[in-house]
Amino acid sequence: MAIQSNNNGNNNGAQAKNSAPQMKWWGWGDEDKRFNIDDKPTLWPFLCKKLGVEGELVETPPVSINDIEMPRQNLNEAFFTAIKDKLRPEQIHTDKKDRLVHAYGKSFRDLWRIRRGIVDFAPDCIIYPESEEEVVTLLTAATEHQVIIIPFGGGSNIAGCLEVRDVNGRMVVSLDMKRMNQVLELDEESCTARIQAGVLGPDMEAQLQERGHTLGHFPDSFEFSTLGGWVATRSAGMQSDKYGKIEDMVVSLRMVTPSGTIVTRSVPKASNGININQLCIGSEGILGVITEATMQVHPLPEYWGVFGYLFPDFELGIKAIHECIKKECRPVFVRLNDAGKTQLSFAFKSHSTPFKEWVASGMKAYLKKFKGFDMDKVCLMLTAFEGDYDLYQEQRRKVDAVYKKYQGFYLGRGPGRAFERGKYDFPYIRDLVMDYNIMADVSETSTVWSNLHNLYKKTMDHLDKAISDTGVVPFLGCHISHSYFTGTSLYFSFGCQQVPGKELQQYLYIKKAAEDSFINNGGTLSHHHAVGFEHLPWVEQDISPTGVKAVESLKKGLDPMGIMNPGKILPNGITLEEWGLSDADIRELENRQSKTPTQAS
Amino acid sequence: MAIQSNNNGNNNGAQAKNSAPQMKWWGWGDEDKRFNIDDKPTLWPFLCKKLGVEGELVETPPVSINDIEMPRQNLNEAFFTAIKDKLRPEQIHTDKKDRLVHAYGKSFRDLWRIRRGIVDFAPDCIIYPESEEEVVTLLTAATEHQVIIIPFGGGSNIAGCLEVRDVNGRMVVSLDMKRMNQVLELDEESCTARIQAGVLGPDMEAQLQERGHTLGHFPDSFEFSTLGGWVATRSAGMQSDKYGKIEDMVVSLRMVTPSGTIVTRSVPKASNGININQLCIGSEGILGVITEATMQVHPLPEYWGVFGYLFPDFELGIKAIHECIKKECRPVFVRLNDAGKTQLSFAFKSHSTPFKEWVASGMKAYLKKFKGFDMDKVCLMLTAFEGDYDLYQEQRRKVDAVYKKYQGFYLGRGPGRAFERGKYDFPYIRDLVMDYNIMADVSETSTVWSNLHNLYKKTMDHLDKAISDTGVVPFLGCHISHSYFTGTSLYFSFGCQQVPGKELQQYLYIKKAAEDSFINNGGTLSHHHAVGFEHLPWVEQDISPTGVKAVESLKKGLDPMGIMNPGKILPNGITLEEWGLSDADIRELENRQSKTPTQAS
Repeated sequence: MAIQSNNNGNNNGAQAKNSAPQMKWWGWGDEDKRFNIDDKPTLWPFLCKKLGVEGELVETPPVSINDIEMPRQNLNEAFFTAIKDKLRPEQIHTDKKDRLVHAYGKSFRDLWRIRRGIVDFAPDCIIYPESEEEVVTLLTAATEHQVIIIPFGGGSNIAGCLEVRDVNGRMVVSLDMKRMNQVLELDEESCTARIQAGVLGPDMEAQLQERGHTLGHFPDSFEFSTLGGWVATRSAGMQSDKYGKIEDMVVSLRMVTPSGTIVTRSVPKASNGININQLCIGSEGILGVITEATMQVHPLPEYWGVFGYLFPDFELGIKAIHECIKKECRPVFVRLNDAGKTQLSFAFKSHSTPFKEWVASGMKAYLKKFKGFDMDKVCLMLTAFEGDYDLYQEQRRKVDAVYKKYQGFYLGRGPGRAFERGKYDFPYIRDLVMDYNIMADVSETSTVWSNLHNLYKKTMDHLDKAISDTGVVPFLGCHISHSYFTGTSLYFSFGCQQVPGKELQQYLYIKKAAEDSFINNGGTLSHHHAVGFEHLPWVEQDISPTGVKAVESLKKGLDPMGIMNPGKILPNGITLEEWGLSDADIRELENRQSKTPTQAS
Repeated sequence: MAIQSNNNGNNNGAQAKNSAPQMKWWGWGDEDKRFNIDDKPTLWPFLCKKLGVEGELVETPPVSINDIEMPRQNLNEAFFTAIKDKLRPEQIHTDKKDRLVHAYGKSFRDLWRIRRGIVDFAPDCIIYPESEEEVVTLLTAATEHQVIIIPFGGGSNIAGCLEVRDVNGRMVVSLDMKRMNQVLELDEESCTARIQAGVLGPDMEAQLQERGHTLGHFPDSFEFSTLGGWVATRSAGMQSDKYGKIEDMVVSLRMVTPSGTIVTRSVPKASNGININQLCIGSEGILGVITEATMQVHPLPEYWGVFGYLFPDFELGIKAIHECIKKECRPVFVRLNDAGKTQLSFAFKSHSTPFKEWVASGMKAYLKKFKGFDMDKVCLMLTAFEGDYDLYQEQRRKVDAVYKKYQGFYLGRGPGRAFERGKYDFPYIRDLVMDYNIMADVSETSTVWSNLHNLYKKTMDHLDKAISDTGVVPFLGCHISHSYFTGTSLYFSFGCQQVPGKELQQYLYIKKAAEDSFINNGGTLSHHHAVGFEHLPWVEQDISPTGVKAVESLKKGLDPMGIMNPGKILPNGITLEEWGLSDADIRELENRQSKTPTQAS
């Protein structure tokens, strides 16, 4: 990535960068980057074993872009006439590649379709605004000429927030915000920064860090997601334990809606009626376009370190996290893998030397013999500390004491270094396994401490059953990476071999099992991935029918013509069949196990 | 106060308490309690001196209740018929005293009117629901029969949230929530408690503390305000530095609206679209009735102490607070008085012994001579610590080091003890001074650190000018009592002798100066007192016209008949004259100084 701030902070469209990198159309990340499995000799064998793969896997690469037939392009001439004097021609793209890149996010459903060249809908046009004024122009023209606007940040969303839905014959514009990418102001005394919404994570951090500050927001998608996207989806970064979720960092914002521009004030707290920031945060583009936000930022810490610990089981690791919180001792991040995820983590290890192997096996033997660890149950905990020297040392000392109490075994800096090296690479794996007809996905939720074990256990059981139902062997894992005073997130990863000819339905059948479990067992439909289209069937149960009515009211009031990102957040009575899974599919999938005593291959 | 939990937590209306104390109709607090000035020998002389009082003040007590003519009572028979089988007769009150108690909150405008027997509007009926089911019944009947509902908690609001406005001939019911007063569940593991919204502060804390927990929310109004009121107005308590504002403590809630009941889930964080909790928090009764909330609670701390410090000036005190925050060292509360407020605080001292006097004068001499303190500029800082022994000591040690750096002089526990004794008594003073035609009020805001001095200075200047304009001598003071990473609150207190015959206009002229200054100098219209009616003229500037439109959309969607607390939050183009201050008043008041070279008496 070579994204650099080259602007003096002047909010002048003409100075903004004219091009920003797009992710590959068919998968995650940079066009020229693939997940490097060659330096991880144990990973593929681990996956094959876990997934019950026997024999050679069939390779199914994405189709060629030339073979994809794009949906008919609907170009609304009146709209273009209205905007043509306000934007430069090169801000308006209508070519196939750009339409393809903006057709989907990166959910499993998205990737499965695009890899097969299934593009039933795509934006007709992509526009790259360079100032808020241009966004206002575009929304005004769109309102007048009945054009749909889908705000687009980095394109990393995995909840279906970006896809074209409920068009009703209208032209669709994907509004790519990436040229609005400047840190406009930094108030070092107040620790606030006014930042344009289209800036990608690395570009924003470069601009802030140049001046000694950080937002402290590092989601897995960091390299390919934007501030506006984070705010619109209530994103959480790896360091949320210290810095909070994105909604905790927004001091004020500006959001252009079809009914005018919402502007809030940069004050730390207020009692000025309903919190207007909070109406915009999480609105997923259905009310308007977030153009900038003033964010709480932090001076860069002097010291920083990530350390690994091994716990005998998930429960003890959870207890250790909880006790740290109760003692008001908050490392900057704490990430606890369950046993399944721990085994996956260890399978990521790179080529080793005989000496390292010898040390590792010695450690294992020691843990088994002297600590009584069952190596099938051990859980890896990564914990990061930062601050000035005193704070850093004090936190480490306190955490060490608590972890020891719960039999945490200190592994040193090795696991932390490995995590730091590969922390943004995880999403690339999915492209690799999809080449071999393996489904891999994630679903995450949160709950209170007293319900954590129940929700974890039930969801693992439901996922295990759902995948097994479809006649294949499940891989399951879970980690906790966002902890709060009252509870934590639970982030489930699941994978299996695909059922040929029913790949998407199989996926949805499994996804449904996760979401049903969240909603029926005291969780929420998502902790930080958004509602989008993927989670529509569970919205009403999550926020109650009257809660949905409240969101509908906002939609009706601020976007009366329904031009903003239709078909997201609001369920509008969606059925499972409309979501992609018919009763017949369910019946067929839930009985596959009995029909296929050996797994598909 | 003898409020005790006597219920086993069963959410059964029949078991709820049938009576709850009401504040006196004409002033603050318990009917039989007055502010005790006799044990504060220096307070009255201090006030007289500050306010330029010469000679005897005229005493103007409140009128007798018998002399008050109530507005015509509008009883909607169809409504009563609809509800009569669902509630017991004694839940429905229509007597004069109850109407009077529920006619107003406790703003200066409220008290000034009621003390003079000016009651142009009052609720026609007061209903005391005992369950959410009854609230639903009432809102359903109210919608059908066009009856207005004003939710009423403790009645302590000072922003005009409770008064009858925009009735259009409809009957008005004040919905007094005080019988819904139970802590229904305590989840000790998750530190959450499900609590009915009508519970008063002391009752709630008694129920929680009995089981070893606290909400940690102690606003000045604590004794006479309710959980529902706090949530509906985005309240802040004295310990917000540690525990947060009320909006930070809400895990989930239930709000009955005319369009159904909003129910959210008890999860620590979510990404399920727009945060529905946040649509209800701060809604000030215009969307519905909050019936219960699940709140984050905390185990009672083992150690607790409040200490006093003296700083040479306000700026150094502010710097000390800011540095503690930057060092992640957060006492449970920090309260810094400016010089004016410090002098007022010291005037509260009780009868002293010659020895104490001698010590105090010795300390003053020492501070002047050896520390170079200017006693007209010194600022009192109260700082509270809590936690287990280690945390408590560690915080004290850290804070002491920072305070020393900024020349903070340690005063020991004395000022803290005095504060603890009288912390809920402050609102009683206003009744006392109003007996003598002295206006006393507060306005509070917040801003970021870099703007703190500017906003403080400008607002002090504007208040000074506004009060002086009206031909009287101002008393002004300010304190900081809620600090955040990006800024703090600023809480202004102001008082003066009243202009006979123009008391209310004079007050509004001064109030306007404060609010204008907040809005024109980077503040917000209120940090924790709500919009209500008092702050309507500044809403649109604070949250932007499109922000207002968003709130209007919610109102229209959830309360289409407009029965919920009309005339609050939404400005609807209100003019200053409709607010109570005509152009003629302004012209007359701003020129009074030149006409009255000596102050009124």
